[in-house]
Amino acid sequence: MVNVAIIGVGTVGESVVKILQENKDIITARSGKEINPIIGVVRNLDKKRDVNIELTSSVEEVLNRKDVDIVVELMGGVDEPYKVVKTALENGKSVVTANKALLAYHRYELQDIAGNIPFEFEASVAGGIPIITALRDGLSANHIESIKGIMNGTSNYMLTKMINEGIDFQTILKEAQDLGYAEADPTFDIGGFDAGHKLLILASIAYGIDAKPEDILIEGIEQISNEDIQFAKEFGYSIKLLGIAKRIGDEVELRVHSTMIPNSEMIAKIDGVMNGVSVIGDRVGETLYYGAGAGGDATASAVVANIIDIVRHDKKSPMLGFKKPLENTKLTLKPTGEIETHYYVRIEVKDRAGVLAEISKIFGEFGISIETMLQKNIDDNSANLLILTHLTKEKFILNAIQKIAKLDSVNSNPYMIRVEK
Amino acid sequence: MVNVAIIGVGTVGESVVKILQENKDIITARSGKEINPIIGVVRNLDKKRDVNIELTSSVEEVLNRKDVDIVVELMGGVDEPYKVVKTALENGKSVVTANKALLAYHRYELQDIAGNIPFEFEASVAGGIPIITALRDGLSANHIESIKGIMNGTSNYMLTKMINEGIDFQTILKEAQDLGYAEADPTFDIGGFDAGHKLLILASIAYGIDAKPEDILIEGIEQISNEDIQFAKEFGYSIKLLGIAKRIGDEVELRVHSTMIPNSEMIAKIDGVMNGVSVIGDRVGETLYYGAGAGGDATASAVVANIIDIVRHDKKSPMLGFKKPLENTKLTLKPTGEIETHYYVRIEVKDRAGVLAEISKIFGEFGISIETMLQKNIDDNSANLLILTHLTKEKFILNAIQKIAKLDSVNSNPYMIRVEK
Repeated sequence: MVNVAIIGVGTVGESVVKILQENKDIITARSGKEINPIIGVVRNLDKKRDVNIELTSSVEEVLNRKDVDIVVELMGGVDEPYKVVKTALENGKSVVTANKALLAYHRYELQDIAGNIPFEFEASVAGGIPIITALRDGLSANHIESIKGIMNGTSNYMLTKMINEGIDFQTILKEAQDLGYAEADPTFDIGGFDAGHKLLILASIAYGIDAKPEDILIEGIEQISNEDIQFAKEFGYSIKLLGIAKRIGDEVELRVHSTMIPNSEMIAKIDGVMNGVSVIGDRVGETLYYGAGAGGDATASAVVANIIDIVRHDKKSPMLGFKKPLENTKLTLKPTGEIETHYYVRIEVKDRAGVLAEISKIFGEFGISIETMLQKNIDDNSANLLILTHLTKEKFILNAIQKIAKLDSVNSNPYMIRVEK
Repeated sequence: MVNVAIIGVGTVGESVVKILQENKDIITARSGKEINPIIGVVRNLDKKRDVNIELTSSVEEVLNRKDVDIVVELMGGVDEPYKVVKTALENGKSVVTANKALLAYHRYELQDIAGNIPFEFEASVAGGIPIITALRDGLSANHIESIKGIMNGTSNYMLTKMINEGIDFQTILKEAQDLGYAEADPTFDIGGFDAGHKLLILASIAYGIDAKPEDILIEGIEQISNEDIQFAKEFGYSIKLLGIAKRIGDEVELRVHSTMIPNSEMIAKIDGVMNGVSVIGDRVGETLYYGAGAGGDATASAVVANIIDIVRHDKKSPMLGFKKPLENTKLTLKPTGEIETHYYVRIEVKDRAGVLAEISKIFGEFGISIETMLQKNIDDNSANLLILTHLTKEKFILNAIQKIAKLDSVNSNPYMIRVEK
């Protein structure tokens, strides 16, 4: 018999309890033991909850209970859960968490603290999709060349609506908020931070690389206009908020941003609130994992899978697949400015002679060559220049854009979307 | 240090040796130990092989070597590998196999023989896609509602070409043979048997159900005509050779056949030689796994992942996820005739008055109601009737078709494609 404590009994916690109780037949058959959720910790004992287990408001009590074998951390936040997980591990209890922010900041310390005690976190990336298992165990024979993930359902829902139905950003944001897909303050989702946390976790498993959210390029989808979407459609691209990890030589790029990708790629076909992660290994080629990235039951499916795994296996590999720092390879994080890709740039200009020449000249100064340029008139006096560049470095495009923004003939700050082909 | 012997050094075996040697840095970092391929067994020692390890023609010698820890079985066939795997396990050696036919027939005996000795088989289904890991470990919290898999690249390549380029079956078969995608005798692939073996393996993991290839419905893609493809396109369907496992109450359907599926489904979007498996769990909803289903490197990627897994973990759950017979649930195989789905039926008829009435009457006799019917003239004297039915049972449609085939006004045996919506 294995006893589980749930710290934080919200939507996901309720689902964890229910799955353990309602799918007991299959879970016992698969794990070979009876797994019981015995206690839940909540902040407010007065709030009605839809679960059938004992509740307490004392975390300490639960962490010290001898009969608790596995602690499931579903509190949210970073500092509090860090203390809870640390204490649980120090008390010899296995831990399962769905907390991506905790791991984005403290995964390597926690791996050290855990040692041989199982500490699992499948639900922290892409909800119900077993991407951690796939990457850490299923693709372990490969050097990972790249990871491209749609890991935020809110953003993907909004982008899908903007592309398929031509709805503008503000309208669809409001709709997403009404449907409960987006928070009142949506920054964490649509600003790319949520995806950034997840990307850092995957990057540790793929590359054994340590980085914090502050270290990497994170941009959101807030400034995408219908003009950009029209351009993407015209040239056979979709626009997705992607978390991208890519190894080039001894450097790893980590970045989150809205991205134009060819419609022919599998990941371009993932619409609505669904998540998907494409992983390219040097031996297996591309594999892709698709499913629900959020929601109580889907997330809890991953949490319970981790619990079963802990019960089934005597000992696991290091939590992140290998120890930090990765001893026998020397991967380092590529500086943001050195990232090389194609760029789409939208520049609103005054419609007068010589503008094109001025802008082309600046691109030329930074060695940026242009693949395609379209001019779309806005009114009699102004137009949008939509430019697709050949491969260039982030620092060059940023410098060029900065210089272009200062031109008299340019109406507002240029906007760019990175392009992955 | 862990030593690996490879029994059967063909394309996949060569790739296994190369990955272990060439990706040693990452494999050592991930497994925490050095893993060495030390010997390979081949039938013909004179044949030149592209590997850098000792070769022998004596399986017995290798199975008895004390310094061999893990045996990789890549021989092909059923009876011989069964003996080899059995002896290896009895000698206490861990086993990794890519052999789907072996498992389609002997997976439960081998699980019993293995006991606590690791026996892994990720490469046996869908090549490099870690679908076994995903299903057995990642989705273990779920009752599996259904599995729908494109698990044969040859068939998918041919169907994609037929649909996208309008090439007929015989022409594309020859092309696939020239490209090495199809064997000289392509029956195993295009007749659905390869997919059938794989489906049985997945069904054991999902449902703990024992069945052999002879027990289940297996049909191929040989009779699909351009007419069928036109119809599918017109009504928004794609045609795929699917392996389908579906639980309805206490019964499990297992079947392989060409299937019309709505273009909007993710699995309909998997084209060419690629494989993909969609799994619906009662908690997680749909998840999908996509990648290369064949090829030396992709298959070897899965074999080596299993080797790493064995080295990393002290003990694994039962090989198939749970023991046979599944003790605390009572799932049985649904008889083929009781399978219920929609059907597309193509009937070539003489173009004369009353034919439609005759055919409709027979459908009516068996309680089959028609959703759509199209008549496409072939010439002045004959036409194809293309019919889409509402939900009905396999036994009813088979009986109706048998009766329709005997009508004077029907030119040849009707052909049907099952439809999954």
